[in-house]
Amino acid sequence: QSSVTAFGLIDMSIGTGKVAGTNASIKTADSGKMTTSHFGFRGMEDLGGGVAATFQLESFLRADIGNSGRSNTDNFWARNANVGLTSKEWGTVKLGRNTTTLFVAALNFNAFGDSFGYSPTIRHIFTSGTVTGDSGWSDSVLYTTPNYSGFTASAFVAAGEGSGGRNVAASGTYVNGPLAGALVYQKVQKDAAVDDTSVWMANGSYDFGAVKLFGQYAKAENLTRRVDYKIYEVGASVPIGAGKLLAQYGEISPSAGAGRKTWTVGYDYWLSKRTDVYLVGMSDKIEGLAAGNSVSLGMRHRF
Amino acid sequence: QSSVTAFGLIDMSIGTGKVAGTNASIKTADSGKMTTSHFGFRGMEDLGGGVAATFQLESFLRADIGNSGRSNTDNFWARNANVGLTSKEWGTVKLGRNTTTLFVAALNFNAFGDSFGYSPTIRHIFTSGTVTGDSGWSDSVLYTTPNYSGFTASAFVAAGEGSGGRNVAASGTYVNGPLAGALVYQKVQKDAAVDDTSVWMANGSYDFGAVKLFGQYAKAENLTRRVDYKIYEVGASVPIGAGKLLAQYGEISPSAGAGRKTWTVGYDYWLSKRTDVYLVGMSDKIEGLAAGNSVSLGMRHRF
Amino acid sequence: QSSVTAFGLIDMSIGTGKVAGTNASIKTADSGKMTTSHFGFRGMEDLGGGVAATFQLESFLRADIGNSGRSNTDNFWARNANVGLTSKEWGTVKLGRNTTTLFVAALNFNAFGDSFGYSPTIRHIFTSGTVTGDSGWSDSVLYTTPNYSGFTASAFVAAGEGSGGRNVAASGTYVNGPLAGALVYQKVQKDAAVDDTSVWMANGSYDFGAVKLFGQYAKAENLTRRVDYKIYEVGASVPIGAGKLLAQYGEISPSAGAGRKTWTVGYDYWLSKRTDVYLVGMSDKIEGLAAGNSVSLGMRHRF
Repeated sequence: QSSVTAFGLIDMSIGTGKVAGTNASIKTADSGKMTTSHFGFRGMEDLGGGVAATFQLESFLRADIGNSGRSNTDNFWARNANVGLTSKEWGTVKLGRNTTTLFVAALNFNAFGDSFGYSPTIRHIFTSGTVTGDSGWSDSVLYTTPNYSGFTASAFVAAGEGSGGRNVAASGTYVNGPLAGALVYQKVQKDAAVDDTSVWMANGSYDFGAVKLFGQYAKAENLTRRVDYKIYEVGASVPIGAGKLLAQYGEISPSAGAGRKTWTVGYDYWLSKRTDVYLVGMSDKIEGLAAGNSVSLGMRHRF
Repeated sequence: QSSVTAFGLIDMSIGTGKVAGTNASIKTADSGKMTTSHFGFRGMEDLGGGVAATFQLESFLRADIGNSGRSNTDNFWARNANVGLTSKEWGTVKLGRNTTTLFVAALNFNAFGDSFGYSPTIRHIFTSGTVTGDSGWSDSVLYTTPNYSGFTASAFVAAGEGSGGRNVAASGTYVNGPLAGALVYQKVQKDAAVDDTSVWMANGSYDFGAVKLFGQYAKAENLTRRVDYKIYEVGASVPIGAGKLLAQYGEISPSAGAGRKTWTVGYDYWLSKRTDVYLVGMSDKIEGLAAGNSVSLGMRHRF
Repeated sequence: QSSVTAFGLIDMSIGTGKVAGTNASIKTADSGKMTTSHFGFRGMEDLGGGVAATFQLESFLRADIGNSGRSNTDNFWARNANVGLTSKEWGTVKLGRNTTTLFVAALNFNAFGDSFGYSPTIRHIFTSGTVTGDSGWSDSVLYTTPNYSGFTASAFVAAGEGSGGRNVAASGTYVNGPLAGALVYQKVQKDAAVDDTSVWMANGSYDFGAVKLFGQYAKAENLTRRVDYKIYEVGASVPIGAGKLLAQYGEISPSAGAGRKTWTVGYDYWLSKRTDVYLVGMSDKIEGLAAGNSVSLGMRHRF
């Protein structure tokens, strides 16, 4: 009886895109437009008394060029690499490289999830120079409480290890039937080469059945550059047949520099529980620059 | 029920070799002399209606030095990294990094398969400066028709993505009992740093039972350097006991620069369906240079 | 029936450490303090007649930062990458990258095993500039005899491949009930950039039940730098409840340069056969420098 589960997701699409501020559209075959492609191993061992040992070993990959990582400088197991103990009574502790609670809340409360290609939320929080410290923290300990009637909280620390300070985060999540919400705070000081930032983010969603609505508000502060950011995001997901119509809009307003407004709409059709095809388009407008826009037709397969 | 199959092949040999044009023989322990060592994951999901989703995630490796890739600059999943849909009625489409149809025809119609160490065909087509663009294409879409009474055709495109033009290939394959043949065309323009090349290749084999004969003819053109290449290859495979005697000869004649004539003979003995041992020798003569030669004694194990 | 077994170990700890000769203690979350974290694939195929084909493909990893390898320059499959044949009658031969017999003896005969963080033996033999050539050899052939009434011997060669000479090693191991011993010799000349070294190492252990005692003596010679090293190590492992109290002391005395004396004590508690937690402390004193010391609290999980 194997104690290891191999799993992953490959997302490939063809499309055309023009980056905000540039003139030329380029036709591309891309990996990870809707979900960053990845593979990994995970397992759980029952230790008795309601306690289990767990591990995660997960690697991002770029299927379009047949390479590992999100970039050529990414660590191989950057998605998750940790070992831990979990108990229904005492909660869960995971030690190693862990996905941040900010990233988990950001993806759970917008219609395009963890899409680095198309989610306005991910774009404004993680790829607009807003928050530093990546979507996973190295040298970290993540503690999550047991579920108390829908409520869980977590505390998250990454050791500085002599390079800048440490990172800290705290979050609370509430799920009750159609209603869900999450409040997250994080402060990044680790790695002296990286800007010092802090962020508060409030997230909510309500599923009316015919439509699920999403809302997010974040206030970020870059303490190194002395710039503040206000971000809000709204979205909707509408089930139609075996698929969903998805729409999301968001704005980021910095205290200095150009603002950014991003629209995304798409249709995601599920061929099975593990495989879907999607058609998505985005308009990404940075003040003072030509609008960027992109369209992708793709598929995701989970294994 | 797992949806992932882990698999691979390790080929290790000891031998002695003298590169064409050099004087010293070096004793080595080598990975991948007969088949480039690799490992990977693949899977298929039945979507109903005769349609299935597929994925491939495959990595070359160098078992001799315990490293990934064919070289230190190779991408981790360079062998294959794709997702696709397949149907008996409509054919197969795969999106991502795909093995080229030229490479598949080249290996299927010579006695030494995909051996970068010992196949004259692979040597003349892929490692003599003839064809550019690697044996796998990034950012590519590969379509293969259903099988029509032994005949299949494929169309293959790799997006340029702003760096040079795109690559295109087309091929037709026919298999009928002992007779098989394949015609392939490919044109490489992707990656401005790489020479622009095109190639036509005709391949045939006939299995008489006591001996299987192979023949290949290719005409390649390097449009950047204005050099043409004519290549022909002949080979035979003779079953003897649980093994096969293998022989292959080929020549490459460029319109400018030195020609090359390569002989390989070997005996491949199968310990099981998954494990074989081999003894192979090659003479590789480039006009005007001292002949290269090499001998390897090795084993391959598939898992 | 799959022919591949995926397996691995993740070791993560939190701790504080001060390197010998430095002043500042740093708090860290670390991978591999007790066992270098790793994952891999292995398999065996029965070929009939008491013979089997085997393969190993094993990769070190740093769970703390989510990266592969022991360092940023480590080869991906550096732990083991080989294929071989094994027979009860004829012994075992493995071709590729193989763990050295010196490393196996060093780890088997001290209380802290292969701990690069806490084993005085590993520290004095492998990370004090004593022995060169790593704990695994590339381009190598390892032959191990069948077991003759508890006695096995091995011969190990790594091809120079044109860069320095080759490496050679020979070892004999005896196991009989509570008594075990091993004698190992190795000489490293491969890789002209690396110092030429040779080492003799004698190892013994006796398990009294209430306590298991370990002893090691090594004499190493750096032929490039003309320095000799004498190393002795003693240790004990005392079962207490579901855990073990571990203690080890060792000294290295070079013919030139500073000597080093290292103490380690720890308690290792097993939550299951696959998962343990540990608390370990070390004092590492290099003559003329401030003593280093470190403490780690961690867990290991095998899968």
